[in-house]
Amino acid sequence: MEDQESLTPLLDQFTRLSGNKILVHGGGQAATRLAEKLGIQTQFVDGRRITCEEMLEVTAMVYGGLINKKIVAGLQARGCNAIGLTGADMNLISASKRPVQEIDFGFVGDIEDVNSRELRILLNENVVPVIASLTHDGHGNLLNTNADTIASELAIELTSYFEVFLFFCFEKKGVLIDPKDENSIIHEIDIVTFNNYREGGIISTGMIPKLENGFHAKRNGVKEVLITNIGDMTNGWGTRLI
Amino acid sequence: MEDQESLTPLLDQFTRLSGNKILVHGGGQAATRLAEKLGIQTQFVDGRRITCEEMLEVTAMVYGGLINKKIVAGLQARGCNAIGLTGADMNLISASKRPVQEIDFGFVGDIEDVNSRELRILLNENVVPVIASLTHDGHGNLLNTNADTIASELAIELTSYFEVFLFFCFEKKGVLIDPKDENSIIHEIDIVTFNNYREGGIISTGMIPKLENGFHAKRNGVKEVLITNIGDMTNGWGTRLI
Repeated sequence: MEDQESLTPLLDQFTRLSGNKILVHGGGQAATRLAEKLGIQTQFVDGRRITCEEMLEVTAMVYGGLINKKIVAGLQARGCNAIGLTGADMNLISASKRPVQEIDFGFVGDIEDVNSRELRILLNENVVPVIASLTHDGHGNLLNTNADTIASELAIELTSYFEVFLFFCFEKKGVLIDPKDENSIIHEIDIVTFNNYREGGIISTGMIPKLENGFHAKRNGVKEVLITNIGDMTNGWGTRLI
Repeated sequence: MEDQESLTPLLDQFTRLSGNKILVHGGGQAATRLAEKLGIQTQFVDGRRITCEEMLEVTAMVYGGLINKKIVAGLQARGCNAIGLTGADMNLISASKRPVQEIDFGFVGDIEDVNSRELRILLNENVVPVIASLTHDGHGNLLNTNADTIASELAIELTSYFEVFLFFCFEKKGVLIDPKDENSIIHEIDIVTFNNYREGGIISTGMIPKLENGFHAKRNGVKEVLITNIGDMTNGWGTRLI
């Protein structure tokens, strides 16, 4: 999502998907780069970003502005009538600031409610929502929320109205048994196998949130969950959650 | 629009306006500040910004991201169901890159078409569009377009469907005869007086585009055009174009 090289095939593939569709994106690497240029320290704990106020502004600029609008303009150029949104727009996703326990994650939002009413009006008009991974607390504050979590919660909400397919797209071809071997794809995975792999340390930490979100979506009515490469979105290759 | 101090009264006033409403904003000062921090040179010719590629990215981040989403979250907190947009979203405003004549303005877009169809669907659902001053060329490129121009072109387009009132809000109380005297407000101005004042150098250069856009809107069916202070939006004070 974050450089032109991967954006082009992604938008080409996404445009080709038939039916109502929604794209959810983050932009963590670009945000980190901008933060560095601005001299803002990015803190991570267990691979999760700590969002200070300055970092929240960076994510609003990068996710909500630069990347979101680049995607929208790119889809419009492909004849796909995109609209860029965050969780604040039309009160789509309300969240609450994560309570401080052992770690203070800063301005990170845990989703409280997904309100798809106006979103469905847009879908019915063949408008294609492109959603940046930002939510709001209803009191005027934006919050940073994980894109995979937004995708799965939105997918679940929409199962009341549509048959929903959820694709997690990334740079690998799927979940790998051996992270060094691009071809060691696990084609199908169930929750028992996932738990065994996780306990055995076989699945890399970066994949765990995607799989957890994916199984959560699958348990809650999402018809199909696929972890796949950007280029394989339309051919169904990758790791299918069963 | 660009600092919390002026944002709060603006959003309070805007929320109080009845009927369908749209807010159009830029964010030039904040963009200039970010550009400075990033070491990007901001060039101006006759008060008009030259938009190099890096500056375009800054405007996408600042107008399209930070400011737009702050306004949306702030309006949502006031019970106003806002949605943040640019001209790329739903193909709302298409533009073409300004041809290079004496000056190369860079990535500046001259409006070609305003397509209000989906916007009107949102208005009919009581959704309140908040539009950042960015357009697109339909080939995947965002363009920087003056917010006053967007406001007036949008106002004109909507006269086919609504009775339209256009308010240009800024830090002064209206158009001033004497820029040093805050109370020297011109309460009503017609095109002849405007042209006389302009030729006489009475009206400051910063006001000219607002007035030109305003008279253009008035000539094209907009019911009322008012140049007013943020705090006076709902009481009708300021300079009325007649």
